[in-house]
Formats: sequence, structure tokens, C-alpha cells
Amino acid sequence: MFMKTLYTPGVAHLSYIFGDGGQASVIDPRRDVNEYLEIAHRSGAKITHIFETHRNEDYVIGSLELARRTGAEIYHGSQLDFQYGNPVNEGDEFQLGNVKLSILHTPGHTMESISIVYSDLTFSDDPLGIFTGDALFIGDVGRTDFYPDRAEEVSGMLYDSIFQKILPLGEHVLLWPAHGAGSVCGSGIAERNFSTLGYERKHNPVLQKTDREEFIRFKVNEEHFQPPYFRQMEKYNLEGAPRLDQLPIPKPLSSDEFARAADGGMLVVDIRSTEAYAGAHVPKSFSLPLDMLPAFAGMFLAYDQPLGLIVEDYSQIEDAVRGLTRIGYDQVDGFLAGGLHAWETSGRGYDRIEAIHITDLEQRIDDGDGFTLLDARSKEEFESGHLRTAVQVYLGDLPSKLEQIPRRRPITTFCETGERATIAAAFLRRQGMERVEVCLGSMSACSHVACQVIIGD
Amino acid sequence: MFMKTLYTPGVAHLSYIFGDGGQASVIDPRRDVNEYLEIAHRSGAKITHIFETHRNEDYVIGSLELARRTGAEIYHGSQLDFQYGNPVNEGDEFQLGNVKLSILHTPGHTMESISIVYSDLTFSDDPLGIFTGDALFIGDVGRTDFYPDRAEEVSGMLYDSIFQKILPLGEHVLLWPAHGAGSVCGSGIAERNFSTLGYERKHNPVLQKTDREEFIRFKVNEEHFQPPYFRQMEKYNLEGAPRLDQLPIPKPLSSDEFARAADGGMLVVDIRSTEAYAGAHVPKSFSLPLDMLPAFAGMFLAYDQPLGLIVEDYSQIEDAVRGLTRIGYDQVDGFLAGGLHAWETSGRGYDRIEAIHITDLEQRIDDGDGFTLLDARSKEEFESGHLRTAVQVYLGDLPSKLEQIPRRRPITTFCETGERATIAAAFLRRQGMERVEVCLGSMSACSHVACQVIIGD
Amino acid sequence: MFMKTLYTPGVAHLSYIFGDGGQASVIDPRRDVNEYLEIAHRSGAKITHIFETHRNEDYVIGSLELARRTGAEIYHGSQLDFQYGNPVNEGDEFQLGNVKLSILHTPGHTMESISIVYSDLTFSDDPLGIFTGDALFIGDVGRTDFYPDRAEEVSGMLYDSIFQKILPLGEHVLLWPAHGAGSVCGSGIAERNFSTLGYERKHNPVLQKTDREEFIRFKVNEEHFQPPYFRQMEKYNLEGAPRLDQLPIPKPLSSDEFARAADGGMLVVDIRSTEAYAGAHVPKSFSLPLDMLPAFAGMFLAYDQPLGLIVEDYSQIEDAVRGLTRIGYDQVDGFLAGGLHAWETSGRGYDRIEAIHITDLEQRIDDGDGFTLLDARSKEEFESGHLRTAVQVYLGDLPSKLEQIPRRRPITTFCETGERATIAAAFLRRQGMERVEVCLGSMSACSHVACQVIIGD
Amino acid sequence: MFMKTLYTPGVAHLSYIFGDGGQASVIDPRRDVNEYLEIAHRSGAKITHIFETHRNEDYVIGSLELARRTGAEIYHGSQLDFQYGNPVNEGDEFQLGNVKLSILHTPGHTMESISIVYSDLTFSDDPLGIFTGDALFIGDVGRTDFYPDRAEEVSGMLYDSIFQKILPLGEHVLLWPAHGAGSVCGSGIAERNFSTLGYERKHNPVLQKTDREEFIRFKVNEEHFQPPYFRQMEKYNLEGAPRLDQLPIPKPLSSDEFARAADGGMLVVDIRSTEAYAGAHVPKSFSLPLDMLPAFAGMFLAYDQPLGLIVEDYSQIEDAVRGLTRIGYDQVDGFLAGGLHAWETSGRGYDRIEAIHITDLEQRIDDGDGFTLLDARSKEEFESGHLRTAVQVYLGDLPSKLEQIPRRRPITTFCETGERATIAAAFLRRQGMERVEVCLGSMSACSHVACQVIIGD
Repeated sequence: MFMKTLYTPGVAHLSYIFGDGGQASVIDPRRDVNEYLEIAHRSGAKITHIFETHRNEDYVIGSLELARRTGAEIYHGSQLDFQYGNPVNEGDEFQLGNVKLSILHTPGHTMESISIVYSDLTFSDDPLGIFTGDALFIGDVGRTDFYPDRAEEVSGMLYDSIFQKILPLGEHVLLWPAHGAGSVCGSGIAERNFSTLGYERKHNPVLQKTDREEFIRFKVNEEHFQPPYFRQMEKYNLEGAPRLDQLPIPKPLSSDEFARAADGGMLVVDIRSTEAYAGAHVPKSFSLPLDMLPAFAGMFLAYDQPLGLIVEDYSQIEDAVRGLTRIGYDQVDGFLAGGLHAWETSGRGYDRIEAIHITDLEQRIDDGDGFTLLDARSKEEFESGHLRTAVQVYLGDLPSKLEQIPRRRPITTFCETGERATIAAAFLRRQGMERVEVCLGSMSACSHVACQVIIGD
Repeated sequence: MFMKTLYTPGVAHLSYIFGDGGQASVIDPRRDVNEYLEIAHRSGAKITHIFETHRNEDYVIGSLELARRTGAEIYHGSQLDFQYGNPVNEGDEFQLGNVKLSILHTPGHTMESISIVYSDLTFSDDPLGIFTGDALFIGDVGRTDFYPDRAEEVSGMLYDSIFQKILPLGEHVLLWPAHGAGSVCGSGIAERNFSTLGYERKHNPVLQKTDREEFIRFKVNEEHFQPPYFRQMEKYNLEGAPRLDQLPIPKPLSSDEFARAADGGMLVVDIRSTEAYAGAHVPKSFSLPLDMLPAFAGMFLAYDQPLGLIVEDYSQIEDAVRGLTRIGYDQVDGFLAGGLHAWETSGRGYDRIEAIHITDLEQRIDDGDGFTLLDARSKEEFESGHLRTAVQVYLGDLPSKLEQIPRRRPITTFCETGERATIAAAFLRRQGMERVEVCLGSMSACSHVACQVIIGD
Repeated sequence: MFMKTLYTPGVAHLSYIFGDGGQASVIDPRRDVNEYLEIAHRSGAKITHIFETHRNEDYVIGSLELARRTGAEIYHGSQLDFQYGNPVNEGDEFQLGNVKLSILHTPGHTMESISIVYSDLTFSDDPLGIFTGDALFIGDVGRTDFYPDRAEEVSGMLYDSIFQKILPLGEHVLLWPAHGAGSVCGSGIAERNFSTLGYERKHNPVLQKTDREEFIRFKVNEEHFQPPYFRQMEKYNLEGAPRLDQLPIPKPLSSDEFARAADGGMLVVDIRSTEAYAGAHVPKSFSLPLDMLPAFAGMFLAYDQPLGLIVEDYSQIEDAVRGLTRIGYDQVDGFLAGGLHAWETSGRGYDRIEAIHITDLEQRIDDGDGFTLLDARSKEEFESGHLRTAVQVYLGDLPSKLEQIPRRRPITTFCETGERATIAAAFLRRQGMERVEVCLGSMSACSHVACQVIIGD
Repeated sequence: MFMKTLYTPGVAHLSYIFGDGGQASVIDPRRDVNEYLEIAHRSGAKITHIFETHRNEDYVIGSLELARRTGAEIYHGSQLDFQYGNPVNEGDEFQLGNVKLSILHTPGHTMESISIVYSDLTFSDDPLGIFTGDALFIGDVGRTDFYPDRAEEVSGMLYDSIFQKILPLGEHVLLWPAHGAGSVCGSGIAERNFSTLGYERKHNPVLQKTDREEFIRFKVNEEHFQPPYFRQMEKYNLEGAPRLDQLPIPKPLSSDEFARAADGGMLVVDIRSTEAYAGAHVPKSFSLPLDMLPAFAGMFLAYDQPLGLIVEDYSQIEDAVRGLTRIGYDQVDGFLAGGLHAWETSGRGYDRIEAIHITDLEQRIDDGDGFTLLDARSKEEFESGHLRTAVQVYLGDLPSKLEQIPRRRPITTFCETGERATIAAAFLRRQGMERVEVCLGSMSACSHVACQVIIGD
């Protein structure tokens, strides 16, 4: 009897592989499935069951990929018209060795969402844990904004799923959700990945709204960001994503070839650190540091244009491609051979972004300089404390709210630490705004020097 | 806020590293501490607190090693005269970022055993999990046989620790013990490493003995194996083990050098598979397959003789040395360069062990051949089903009960799968018994063919 | 300016990647091409030229695979009707940065064989090294037995290629051939992989035959082993091998599934050590230890039957599959999950092979026991020293000369160290000969004990 | 018979491990010796002989380290008073299997320099290759500037060593020197690492000076840079370097701890890319990008101050520490936990360096702006082409020639590609010169745009 949790950074996705008696099951596999195969082999088990807790919208699910390589069966809820796999319904049971799995239909986040109850028959038929998908998180509950015209109805469904089906399983039951902190699927998710139904019932803030109407009102009024790439994910996860025979192999491109490809429509994605980007970068390139790539690529990059990478070292390419294919960007054509150094020595022009220290920024605000201070954090973050004169536009909203930003004035971008600010600055520069500076350190730095902060709107 | 469980196979030891706000803590570190350092670094945290739930007797604890490389403080119970670290008492509290740790004194297994309660202050002061050391396991409780003259007293202490202190924390509390299945510290430990206090209260068989006297009676009557190496571990873990500047570097030895060293007292430890050992081996060598090495080395190998390894391939040496130093065998002098193949081509003599299939073994029993069928499993395993005429001597007891085995008759060794049987066979051959065969497959094979099995004594 | 030699064990193949000025070239790539891509990337170079020194017959060439992933052009001799690539002719020149390559047509081994002369223009146009393919090896020259009816003609061609074209380049020229010691392409190849034309002219035994007629006579009288798999290689290397999108993924098979598949025609290939095979193995399985797999698989395994592996540990599977695809075995269906241990515990029968020590074997010869002593070494090895009564049949000839071996008498197999003897023993057992023993240590052991050896026929 | 060349970047050092018959020898080992041990083990060989071609001055030799872990003997020339190892003299011979090694005394670079002739007795006693240490390189010969008062004498010695002893071995002999291109031990060394005595005799520019007097005159007039760290290396390599039980373990330091340590004398070494350093860096930190660290650390860093690293990611630490210990920097106290990002979010101040494009730089020269254009390349590089108004001060000379640079004027640093220019800029800033800019791309960029270049002085 073994279980391993795989955490996928960027999309903050949690998938689970477990098994007993030579069989193994995977809950919500990611698209690059080698790690599941390795764990199964090392555990002497064969993957026979794949469960999808729901049709995901924030990453490409790897069920088909994994099934193709193992012969396992795929199972998901029955209320959606999937083009692959088998429907399951409340009460269906599965057994792997001494592990018993029972299906609960727990709609709300999506109509066909299921939760999967885990029992260890060695000891008892009693539930020991539950995979809740996007119904119940640690510290939060799932989004209910995907059916805007049925907002109250689906919020009520989620209430019933949680309060009528999940929580009654017992205080002692382990909670295994599909996402951790940082996911776009819930803003209040705890940083830790372990909890129980008893702990959540007592301390999950949303579960304190035990009144059904209050719960619904709260959910209906929530604001969630729907990145444009969700639509592509939904399509893939309903119809099945393209077969991923192997990660695409980006070709090394000389500075000349790279420049030509960029002229021809290849989007230039610079995955180096914010400091390196600030120091020198290819004009008009996107800044998407490697560890932020899966979280933010879907907000800026079109699916129908090939991508070209600029990396710090060769080993990053594999990670970048893996991160991109996880959200459906399968066409990474190449990378700048020799890195930015090669670009510089080729005599081509490079751009830089000025960084401004928080102390100087405060001075500038005091001086009333005619500039826009653009805070790229979410509304919640902004309201928990921001600088005077700051204008809040969430990073992901930038492409659609561009016209709200005055083009004539200089801009200083700002966020929590400076990373999202750099991504924003790069994007604005790409949009033709020349005078953009970034505040490295941003709000975090603020808390270590004596800053004047406004709480609230 | 992060947590990672490190499982050490062989000794079935669970240690934990977790942290928040740039600080990290380790519970019961093992001796090779690199993995803790890596996890801490990757999490951007500094290890500042090391807790020992109790003075361990089954492996060398790595607290001093880890403290030396991080500057962290070591904490353990105050009822033992440790030669390093700091004593803590019930009620003591520690904080790392938003993680609060509170000490419970939970004696019984040892006098100074502590449990450590974990709260996530982001949500509440309420307990979320507990590190119970060897007080409470998943599916079992700790041994209470280390103070034979105070058996009832310490069993009562353990009852109070569990029922008065641990379980009252709440059904919803996560359980993080110090050992998993296969540990010599508890025979009924569950195979899985996740549970809650609520689940255990309901389904842990020992916790069903809610009557104090009944619990004590049960514990006092338990039989536990105390391997001879425990004494060395206790000494190390009280006084501090030798500084492990780096794993010892066994030298490659030619067949000639290896043979000479063996003549001079080096113990020859063959860590290849049972099949390879059966096929050909150096005369008088121990058979201790790599994955069984940490669990069984302490039963056979003296601490004052150097060891020489025979391996399948070079990469196994590092694992073997790591496994051995975890239980205090620091003097691995060398390995047979070129493996057994080199030994064979050097013209030296090699031995083999005959394997006998279960079907033939049954026939032999039917025929009443004058041979000893030695079952090297534990009493519990034996009584759950064994072959006719089989004599049970637990593998670990073999060195001390050797005189019980008739030297003149042929012997067939037997166990659950054939591995322990091979270890036993090799040991008996080393002791001068020539006619020893092993039943590969053993009891497991039995269950797939029509075997005649006796349940009970 | 960089160069790296890649050595492929088993087929003892040498390929070369080198480059300058951002370009790289590969000589005779193997089929798994990732390592070339990595080296090129790390060197900041793009692979633009692939050369095949000749149509290989002993392994699948990776030119198409590499071209597909890099866009490089493929070049080979013009006297064969290749279905891909570009023909080159004597005098053709290529330049990569300061590296100049010039083509020599050097037929003999095959009609379209080329050699490629390397000059470093930074210093001079003078030749610095030469890639000779299978024309000239270190310590030997290429085989000339592929055109049996034109034996004298092609041997003369080889003489002219070496003495008229290659050696005249100068004493100082570095020699980079396509094979090292152990290749089926030449029996006298030196163990080391470095030499110069000057050293070879003086010390290569075959090059001492400076008289054209003497050289031809010598070559015509040579005996070479032509393994059956050569035909498959020739076809692949002329037409292009199937696209190797990725190494096939063998599935884990339970003992039941494995046994069923074997009954259905899957060939069982045991890649564990000879000792492990001797200790216990699946009846009728082939013994092909991992390090001998690429060298001997082609002598025993049919191309139209799927393969099933038995391995020591999971990590060997990747190596085994790579080794097999290098010689065109693309259909590895699965592996025995849990290894032989799982087979044993499933209750299925297993076989063993008795090993006999050289001393006992000599005694048996002295006693005149009615048994066949089968020496599986080559004729040259046999004649350099063998035991009395031994019968020589080269391992690779065993399938075709089976009828020469008396089926009724017990057989003891013998070779240089015991490995090929074990492969032979397994094969004979598979062919229904039950009483087969193997002499582990074989001739090597012989040299360390006082053995009676016969030199010559 | 095997041989492997280990290339150590930065110091451009070549060491060799080879062997036969179960024995192995290493020529000029580096200080981190694990790779030799691995190669030996994989080759089934035991390292028994270590040769030092001479007392090295540019890196710490690993002979003692390797001897301690293998028991091998160390051999070096007899004309220096080494505090360890065994002296050898011309004519001494050693044999490992079929490899014969013969010692030649080849003084000139140092008094006790030896060369080691390699013969393969399988074929002949004739020399096949030669390890020449720093006597003869590929494309150059060794420095003779270490005995300034005996300059002519030692240059003559080198002439005799090469022309009387080495070259007469024959055109066909392979050349294995101790350094490749980029070493401070020779400026004209070829980029490739393979050659023969015959090729060098014809094409090595220095060997064209066949007249003894002309050769001496040429050598005496050569200018070589002697980095300050040479003295430490000489001491270590004569007396034996401190035992390297394991690479030092730098501790993670918070921004506060890091800043405090820096105030207390810890030298801050930023090993990130030049672009990242330009984008933002800790004030007064050294810029020494990881791949340039071993080559340039010795020019700037004191041996008696601890070092603190700033890295891009955690995995670089191990490489950096290895590179530093190779040149005797054993005291790396810590690294900035969380990298520069942590520094920024801590609110501390950071500096930046402006980059200027070559086109703008040319304009600035045209405009006659009052600034210093500092070219940090060597004299040879400078004279092969430089910008107008540029002042040449070699990067390594910067510390000692600081007073030559006007402190009042703005400075633009320049080199071949921009890397050394950034190191120079960082150093100047550290020395209190505030207005320093760097030309990323430098001379290389120049060659791709229409630049006005001056050849010569």
C-alpha cells in the first residue's frame, strides 16, 4: 500500500498515485506522465485505473497519454460528453488490493465533478481519505463562476456537495484536493498540502458559512480571473489533447535565424531571471521567468504562433518545454543558441529596463512626478496594502485593459516582489510604451523600510 | 509552509522536515543528512531546530551530524542523560514562521519520549498534526519491553500517554509516527504512512483495548525481538555517534587481496540477489541482499570486524555503505573488484546453494526424508500458516539458537518468499553445516499451488 | 574546435562528433542520437553534416534519426543505391569553421566506403587526422568477405585504399576508425582507441604484408563470422530504419501475463548476470547478460517475434532496450514485473544450471566420463590454448551447427570466462538438452590453477 | 587498455587516466578526484601510480588527495624538494599490464619537469604517445619566465628538452600535454586537444624556430601574466594542500546575515551572468560569472578572507565551490539564501551597471566625450584590433595598475565579448569609481557592425 503526491508548480496542481496488491491508480494525471510510470514500476505495480475528478480548465490532463502507455482505463463524471474514457456515477466502487474507492457525485465547480473516497480494507470499510478535486480545497472551496447564468444554482450544488456528502464522512478523514496555494482555482488555498475534514470544518473560512443562502451569496459575489487560455484547456480536456509522443525538440537558432523567425511571427519568450532581463534583453521579447512560466504564459501567449526561447542555460529548455506543454503550448520552435551573450556579440541591439528602489519610488511619489504607478497584483492583494497614487490592474488583465493605461506618461510597474512587475513592464514595452521602469523588491521591500501604505481600496 | 517525509527503507524509519518563514525543523533525522540540506535549500529555509522524539535503539540518529552542518539546536526529552543537545519539557513551545510546535511528554516506549504537536497559526492555534515518535504508530503502538523489571509500569505510562494526552487532541489531528511497516519497533504497523487520531482511535487494534489493565496485560505479554545491535545504537544515540565526515570509501580489492583480507578477519558480505548468491558465491560469505541489508546486518555482523562487500555493480556500493552506516557499521574496508566474475576467473573455488521448488519440498515431506525444515519467519508468521514438520527459528535468533538445529541432517530453509531463507542458509553454511538447501518462493509460492498448510502452533 | 568520440559497447562502435564555428558534424551516428544533440548544444554548435563511412552491417545507423531532429544533411559513398542522403565522391570538400573535410574513396570493405580527411585550417591545410570507417582499424584492417565471388578483387581494392590513399597522408596523421576491439568487423583490433598512421604502418600486423599479392592472399583466407542479423542491418541501412520516435516502452507483466505471452511466442530474454541465471531462471529463457546483449542478441533472436525481458532491477530496462534497438530489435513487449523473485513466489517452476569448477572439470576429463566438453570460443581463441577432449563450436555458430552436438551425452560448456558458456548452456537447454553444466571461470580460471592445456588444433 | 582525458575548464587543464591489466595511472590529477575513482572502478582497475609532470603553479594538484583515497604512489621530478611523493629520473620505467611508461627529464618550464613516454607492449616497445606536461603544448610551448634571472638558461633547457628529447621520438607519436587553449600557461595553445609530434614539428609556430638562439631570444622576449594566486599554488603544490575531506559546505545566509558577514570582511562574489549582474547586484560585490570563476578569481580575491556567493540557482553552488577549491580557495562561508531576489525584497539597496551598445559607443568616441575607454584584453588581443582612444589594461593587471586609470572621468569597459568588461566594471565600482559603463558585445559585436578598428599599438 503506497501513495505519492505529485505537485506541479506553476499550475499548483496536485495529483496522486497510489496502489496495493500490484495495482495502482492515478488521480488527475498531468500530461508528462513519466514520473507516474517510474513510481509504479518501483512499487512493483501496474497502473490500471485513472480518475479525472472533473474536466479541468487550467492545465492539460494526461489521462489519455497515461492510458496509452499503460493500458489503464480512464474514469470521469457522467454529466459531460467526454470523447474518451468511461463515465462513473455515485456509488460506483473499485478495488485495488485492499484499497476500496467509492464515487461521490459532487457537482458545483463543474457539473460532472466527482470525489473519490478511499478506504483501507485491511483495517476497515470506514473512509480514511477523500480526493475532492476542485470541490473542497485546504482553506478554500472550488470556484463556481463557470456557468455565469446559473451562478446561484451551481453555488448551491457546491454547498450540498460539501455539506451533505463530503463533510459527513467524518472528522478523521484525510483531505486530498486537486490544487494547492497559488492556483487560479482558488485564492484562499492554504500553503500546506495536508489537512482533514475535521480541521477544515472548524477552520476553513468558507466552511464557516454554514447557512446555505449565506454560502451561495458569498460564492456568487466572488471575483475570479479567467485567463484566456482556459478555453483551449477545456477543449483539450473534453476532446483529448494531441498525443505527446515526446516533448518537442526546440532547435538551436543562431542570432540571425532567431531574429528572422521572430520577424516571421515567432513569439520571443525570455525565461531568464528578472535581473538578467532588466540587464539586457532582445527588444520586444516577453519576460516570463522559468518558475512563473506555467502560471502566466496562458495570459499572454497566443496558441497559434510558434514560440522561441531565451534561456540562461541549456538545461532550462527541457523544464520550459515541459511547463509549456502542460498548458497546451506544444509548438516551441527553437531557442537562441549561445543565449543572450550570442545576441550581444552578434552586434544586434538589446534593450534594458531600469529598476527603481522603493525608497526612490516613494520620493518620486512625494515629488508628485507625472507618472503612472501600475500595481499588477490582484484586487485582494492591492487592498491589503498599497502605495499612494497606485493604480491596480491585475497582470492577467493587462492585455484586455491596456487602453486604461495612459500611453504618454512614464510608468513604474509594481507588485509583491518585483517579478510580476517585470513581466508587466516587458509587456508594456512590447506594446510600444517606452518609458517603463520596474520596482524590484516592490511591496515586500516596502515592509522592511518605512513605507507609507494605504489599506483598502 | 512545506513538509516532506523521508522514509528510510530497511529500518522503516520516518523522519520529517518542515518549515515556514525561512526556518525549518527536522524530526528524528537519519545519519546521512544531505537530503535534509537539499530540501531546506530548495525551500529557501534554514534548518534551525532538530527534535529527537526519543533515544532510538534501531538506527543511528543524525542530529549531531545535521547540527554540525547547519548550526541548528538539538532538542530531546529531559529524563535521560544525553551527552549533547537541550532538554525540553511538557508545555515548551517553539515557533517557525506560522508553525507552532508544542511539546508533550509521552513516556512508555522510553522514559524521555516526547510527542510534538503541530499547529498552523495562519488558521488557528488548534492542533493540526502530531509527531508521536514510537509512542503511537499507524495500526500499532510502541514497544514497552526495554525496562523488563518495570514492564507493567511503563506499559501503563504508554497507556496514559496515548489515552490521556495524544488522543484527546481530537479526531481531526494528523498522525506522524517515527516508523512504518517492517520496523522492528512494532509488528502490526500499517503499510501506509497516513492516518489521523480519529481513524486510529476507531481502527487501530491495540487502541480498542481501552481498559487500562487490559492494555497493560496485552503489552506485557507481547514478545519482541531485540537484535544484538540495539546496544551499539543506544550507546551511539546517548553519547553521539562518530562524526561522519563522509561515507567511508571502500577500496577495490583484487581477488587475492580480498581473499587475504577475509583470512585476516574481514567479514564477507554478499549483497547480490538471492538467485545470484545461489548460483555462485565466495565460500563462507554472508548473504545479505542490498534491500535487506539495513534490516538484517545488525543480527549477524560484529561491530569490531571490518566488512568486505561483494556487489552486482559498482553503483550498489554507495547504497550499501549508506545503509550500513545508518546502523553504525562504519568500517567497510573494500569490495571485490570485478565482482564474483573476477573471483571465478581467478580460479578460486566458489560455492552454490541448491534451490528446491515448493512442489518437490512437499514431496520430500511426504516421503519422510530425514531432513530438517527450518522456517526462519517470526512466530506470528509461522502460526498464520506453515508446512508440516517445519521447525520455527526466527532468522534474527539463529545465531543464539544454533545449537537447537541438528548438525548431522540435511536442512532446507524456508520463509515467506525465499529471501530470509537464503540469508539463513548462507549463515548455516558459514557455521559448518554443509547440506543446506533453500526453498525459493517459500510460503508465497505455496499459496499458488495446492499446499498442505498447518495454521497455529 | 571540439571533438568527442562516442563508444557504443557491445557492437564496439566508434562514432565521432566534432565541429568549429558553430557547426558540427557527426561521423557514423548510432540510432539513439540524444547524446549527439546534447554535445552539440553544450558546444554551442548546430549539427549540419552527417557522414556515413559505409553501409554498415553490424548495427542500425542513426543518420536519418539525427537528420530528422537537426535538419542536417547526410552524405555517403556514391557506389550504392541508398534510398536517402547525398552521394559524395573523391575530392569533395566540406568546411565547418576552420575544419576542412576531404573525401577519399576507399573501397574494399564495401564498394562505396569512404574515408574523411580532417585538416585544421587554423594551422595548415595539411591532414591532421582521418576517419577510416571499416577500411583501416587500429591493429587490423577491414573485412573483405562480403562479396564472396569477388574476394580477390575487393581485397586488392582494400590494399590500394590503404597503401595508395590512406598511408601516404603521412606518419603524423591521427587515425579514427569506426570500430574498436571486440567488434565482429575485425578480430585483431587493438584494445586502445588511439593511434596514428605512422604507428600503424610500423606495428599493425596486417600492414606488414606490404606485398599486394601477399595481402590479398591473407585476406582471402581469413575466416569471419557472419551473424544472421547482418541481413536485417543491411536492409535497414540501405533503405532507412523505422523512425524511432522514442524507445519502445516495455510494459510490466505479471508472472501470469508473462507466462501467457511466452506461450504465445514472446522470446524470454534474461539479462541478469550468469550467476543469477545459474541460480534460478524461467525455463527455456535465453541467457543474454546485459553487457553482452548487443553483441550476441543478433545470433539467437528472431526479428519477427516480440521480446520479454527478465531484469535484475528496473533501471536495466532502458539500457537493454537501447542496446536492442541499436541492432534493430524494436519490439520489446514487456518485462517480468517484480523480477525472478515474483516468478518464484508465484509458485511457477524455475530451472537452474549447475556450475562446475575448473579443477573438478579436469578431474572429470581425467576420469574419461562420457560427456561432451563444448568450447564456445572462436577458432583463434581455441587454438591459442584449450582443454583436452574439448570440441570447438563458436557461440554464434551454435544455432546452425546444433546437429553436431550429441544430444544423449551430458554437456559441459566452456569459454574464456564462463559468460559465453552460460549463454551456450541456456541455448542448449532451450533446444531440449537437459544435462548441461557450465564451467564458470573457464579458461581464465585455468591459467591460475595448474591446468593441462593444448595449444593448436 | 583504456584512457580518458579529463578537461578542467577555467584553468584549461588536461589530466589523463589510463590503465591496463587491472592497474591504472593518473597524470596530473586535479584536486576533486571522484571522477578518477569512478573511471577506475568502471574499468575494473585500481589506481596505483600518480605522476606529476611538474610542480604546477596555476591550480592545486590532487595527488595527495588521490593517494590518500587509493593508496597509490606519487612520482615527480627529482630536482625540487617536494614534501611528499617519490622522485623519478630519466630512464626510470614503470609497467601497468601491457603499458610501459618511461621517464624523460624535460626541464625548462620548471627545473624538475618530466615527460612520460607511453608504449603499448602488445604491439611494440616503440613510443606511441607522450605526456609532455608544460614542456610542449599543441600549437605552443611552455612558459620560461619563472626564473627571471636565468631566463636564457631555462629557455635553452626547454629547447633541448623539446628538440633533443621529445621530437626525436618520432613523427607518429601522439602528444598529450597538460593544458589546452585558454590556459595562462601558454597564449598560443590550439583549441583542439589532439595532435602528434609530427604535426607539431611541422605546424606549431614556435617549433619553426629551429635555431637554438632564435628560440631562446623568442622565449626571453615573451610577456606572460603572473597572477598573484600563483604563489599560493606553488606553496600548496610543494608542501601538499590541505586535506580536502569534502568540499566545504557554504551555509545559506539570510540577507541580514549576508550583509553583516560582508561588513565583517567576507568578500561577496556574484557568479550570475553578466546580464543579471548588470540588471541588479549587491553593492561592492565582485562579478565573476561561474564559467569564468576559476580563471579570474585568483586575480582579485585574497586568500585570507572568507567568500560569500550570490548564485542564480542552488545547483551552481557545488560547481562554484569545486572551481574555487581547485585554485585553493577553501573558505566559502555561505551564499545568499533566496538569491538576489531575497536581497531586493528585504528592502536593501542594489546597484546596476549601465550597458552601452557598440554603435552608441562609437558615436560617443566620435563626439569626443570626456571618458576613458578601458580595454581589458591582453596586449596581443588589443593589438589585433581595437577602438580609437581605447586604453589597454589587462583585466588581471587591473588591481596593480589601478592608479593609471583617471578616477574623475566616466569609464566604459570593453573586451572581446563583454564578460571581462563586466568583471572589470564591477571591480572599478568596488574601488570607488561610480560612473562605469560596460559595452556588452564589445569587439565581437564590432565585427558585425561597421566599426572603425585600429590594428597594432
